[in-house]
Amino acid sequence: MPYITLESHLPGITGLLEYAKEAAQPIRNLTQFLLRGPSTLSEADRELIATVVSHNNQCTFCTTAHTAAADLLAGEAETAQKVKENIETAPVTEKMKALLTIAKLTAQNGRNVTTEAIDRAKAAGATDIEIHDTVLIAALFCYYNRYVDGLATALPADAGYYNVLAERLVNHGYTRLPQGYDHLKK
Amino acid sequence: MPYITLESHLPGITGLLEYAKEAAQPIRNLTQFLLRGPSTLSEADRELIATVVSHNNQCTFCTTAHTAAADLLAGEAETAQKVKENIETAPVTEKMKALLTIAKLTAQNGRNVTTEAIDRAKAAGATDIEIHDTVLIAALFCYYNRYVDGLATALPADAGYYNVLAERLVNHGYTRLPQGYDHLKK
Repeated sequence: MPYITLESHLPGITGLLEYAKEAAQPIRNLTQFLLRGPSTLSEADRELIATVVSHNNQCTFCTTAHTAAADLLAGEAETAQKVKENIETAPVTEKMKALLTIAKLTAQNGRNVTTEAIDRAKAAGATDIEIHDTVLIAALFCYYNRYVDGLATALPADAGYYNVLAERLVNHGYTRLPQGYDHLKK
Repeated sequence: MPYITLESHLPGITGLLEYAKEAAQPIRNLTQFLLRGPSTLSEADRELIATVVSHNNQCTFCTTAHTAAADLLAGEAETAQKVKENIETAPVTEKMKALLTIAKLTAQNGRNVTTEAIDRAKAAGATDIEIHDTVLIAALFCYYNRYVDGLATALPADAGYYNVLAERLVNHGYTRLPQGYDHLKK
């Protein structure tokens, strides 16, 4: 039961984006830019960063939603699961292991990001911009996770909801609900 | 020494907002809306929320900057200091004590916000919107704190910098650097 009155058919972040539309628009724009904008990190890689951070923050709604988006982008459901279990043994590149470790440390506290973690990423070929974007995406999901859980938003009644949401995030992005997606609001 | 190459004359968040202008614009807009937009919480109250969260996250740049802004808005330097030391004994209303406690819990993890903490705020007269905005401002500063510390940004060489920054935040807001403030970029 959410701590404030939200529309009961809108679980997780979706009810909050509807509750506070003026606050929602800039954060939708930022999310679209960071997760779908031009980048040398793939969209799947960026969804993995969102997944690891949300998992680290124990945010069930965000973890499940971004796992589903990462799975859909990757075309398989193994990588996101293994990354949540253990970054070091997951089937991703050394560069992604280093970046996901930076994301996990950022989620704990920005001060936990060490010179060693940064040097490892740079040695694996990560650029300044990739390191910057990793920290910023991690910070963004610390924002989302706290917004979603700090107000005790509800989980969807039907687990299939996450697949519909992932399809929307992959094919239409974060900016706004496209036409024809009214079923996600009902 | 920052982990990525930033302009050395721009400490804390300021170098990052310059490094990634496209990401900066939406978050500036969101911050302006949440900290300076229409609200039944005063601007000083909202700066206290930013201060408590930044302090809880041990982010020196953000804590010092928002303490200075809260002090300037309040016209005294006692309240912000006491709120950082102990919310319960600080010279603020019962409603603000309850909201600052929610902010502190949100900073730890959204899941730490309890029904009891929310009930206390409502009993003290806090509205749904005030509770929502408190959680969202807390989440926003978890974003800023991680961005600033996760990339190991520098502190200003001169502590007087924070007073100049506070004057700008109080009189000109968060949206952009106004004309005539070029000295903050040099």
